[in-house]
Amino acid sequence: MTAPNKQAVKAYLLNLQDKICQALAAVDGKETFVEDSWQRPEGGGGRSRVLTNGAVIEKGGVNFSHVHGSSMPASATAHRPELAGRSFEAMGVSLVIHPNNPHVPTSHANVRFFIAEKEGAEPVWWFGGGYDLTPYYGNDEDCRHWHNTAKAACAPFGEDKYPRYKKWCDEYFYLKHRDEPRGVGGLFFDDLNELDFDQSFAFMQAVGNSYTQAYVPIVERRKDEPYNQAQRDFQLYRRGRYVEFNLVYDRGTLFGLQTGGRTESILMSLPPLVRWEYDWQPQPNTPEARLYEHYLQPQDWAE
Amino acid sequence: MTAPNKQAVKAYLLNLQDKICQALAAVDGKETFVEDSWQRPEGGGGRSRVLTNGAVIEKGGVNFSHVHGSSMPASATAHRPELAGRSFEAMGVSLVIHPNNPHVPTSHANVRFFIAEKEGAEPVWWFGGGYDLTPYYGNDEDCRHWHNTAKAACAPFGEDKYPRYKKWCDEYFYLKHRDEPRGVGGLFFDDLNELDFDQSFAFMQAVGNSYTQAYVPIVERRKDEPYNQAQRDFQLYRRGRYVEFNLVYDRGTLFGLQTGGRTESILMSLPPLVRWEYDWQPQPNTPEARLYEHYLQPQDWAE
Repeated sequence: MTAPNKQAVKAYLLNLQDKICQALAAVDGKETFVEDSWQRPEGGGGRSRVLTNGAVIEKGGVNFSHVHGSSMPASATAHRPELAGRSFEAMGVSLVIHPNNPHVPTSHANVRFFIAEKEGAEPVWWFGGGYDLTPYYGNDEDCRHWHNTAKAACAPFGEDKYPRYKKWCDEYFYLKHRDEPRGVGGLFFDDLNELDFDQSFAFMQAVGNSYTQAYVPIVERRKDEPYNQAQRDFQLYRRGRYVEFNLVYDRGTLFGLQTGGRTESILMSLPPLVRWEYDWQPQPNTPEARLYEHYLQPQDWAE
Repeated sequence: MTAPNKQAVKAYLLNLQDKICQALAAVDGKETFVEDSWQRPEGGGGRSRVLTNGAVIEKGGVNFSHVHGSSMPASATAHRPELAGRSFEAMGVSLVIHPNNPHVPTSHANVRFFIAEKEGAEPVWWFGGGYDLTPYYGNDEDCRHWHNTAKAACAPFGEDKYPRYKKWCDEYFYLKHRDEPRGVGGLFFDDLNELDFDQSFAFMQAVGNSYTQAYVPIVERRKDEPYNQAQRDFQLYRRGRYVEFNLVYDRGTLFGLQTGGRTESILMSLPPLVRWEYDWQPQPNTPEARLYEHYLQPQDWAE
């Protein structure tokens, strides 16, 4: 079994952040990412990059962070009590892109590596990550492209990977109090260490590297579609679900807030403008109803 | 010790909801509250009332709910493990008012009664509640009036009540990840049963009855103050803190979502329109900076 190489993971993540920011700034065409570097007093820090008020991207954040500490936070040991008392390092890239145009879906991606160490014991480590898509006005072609890209990224690692991580994504990005998925899903994996280190790391890279291939063509196809105020209002309303998910359920958000992460970087995922409307329901036979009836029903998008 | 009278509490709460809605609709002058009654499949239900797009109130919700179940939810037994396994009833009125004008503060109030029963054992019961004020552009006169009203409501029940529940309010409505109070506070009490039932119930009534006396004069004073787009934007930005608090920390919200309460009624507290802006900071020596430096610093507002 190969020993875990923290430096290689870190170098990959920093480079991934660069490449994703370049690709998204290119598709935006107007604004670029502005960087903030930050230090965490308890250990580690990060490099936050935000693009706001772009031609295509209303608000997009692509974060790198690397935090370490002498004991694992509660959110991480809840399902792994054997890790209590170990020192840890967590590093990852996490991004959320909120476009201006309601025809362009919001996307989220994350790749991460955890390692928990103790003097005289084997390190415990795992990878996690994935990406998921949240359309407002869905499009079958986009959903198929998104999932086909995810499936192709998983293929070299075994036929079981895509169906397993696609299902996990559907289950994870789910708003219990709404009985509603957050979007059309994608991939979600966590606790990945059953492959050896090199293979697990390669899998994380395959996921990280395929995100722009999955997202950019969809943005290109939809960014110039005309939209009206009612469609914009629906987008702002649906963004409320994004806020509800991230603040009530998201493990990464809770981990960040509990470990004293940088609040502005963690909450960069929240949309720039959001509406809540009491007991709103879509009218039957509208594109808004179709989101609920078709796109928010988990299904086999990949071919 | 007087036996707890659930029917009397329920009758009071229904009447309080009526009176508060009447007072707020009167100050709005344009719109009235629209009612939805709902049933909870597991037991109980509620009466939600919402006023939207008023002359003064952009979105206001005043809920009555009465839920019961055969076992206490986790959020309620976490700090009272002796209640696990008892049946429970929870009833209360909860409200949040989001005004249009950034010079009018947002207000929240809640009064509630819990009772947990078991065959052959004394019932365990308590009251909780309070109210707190969240200004955008603060005003010392308003803060003093708010706290003086709260203090006067507490006075007949002993000199210790106001300082104790004022402090508890400051501690409860606090955003740890921002190191920021939600507003200028008010009253917060919970687990109140050390007075006998009649006195505890009377205290809850004193709090419930004084809410409109605390809030309406402030609304009347500020509702016609002119404001510009920058001030409106600041209000929308600060509303983000309200969302963060309610979804990450608020015990009532978590209790409601965990007990299968009606999601639209629970999340009625969320503002109609909200902005998040990455790493926004107020300019020095502005009214926006004064909110952080003066109003969001807990202090003795009452005389």
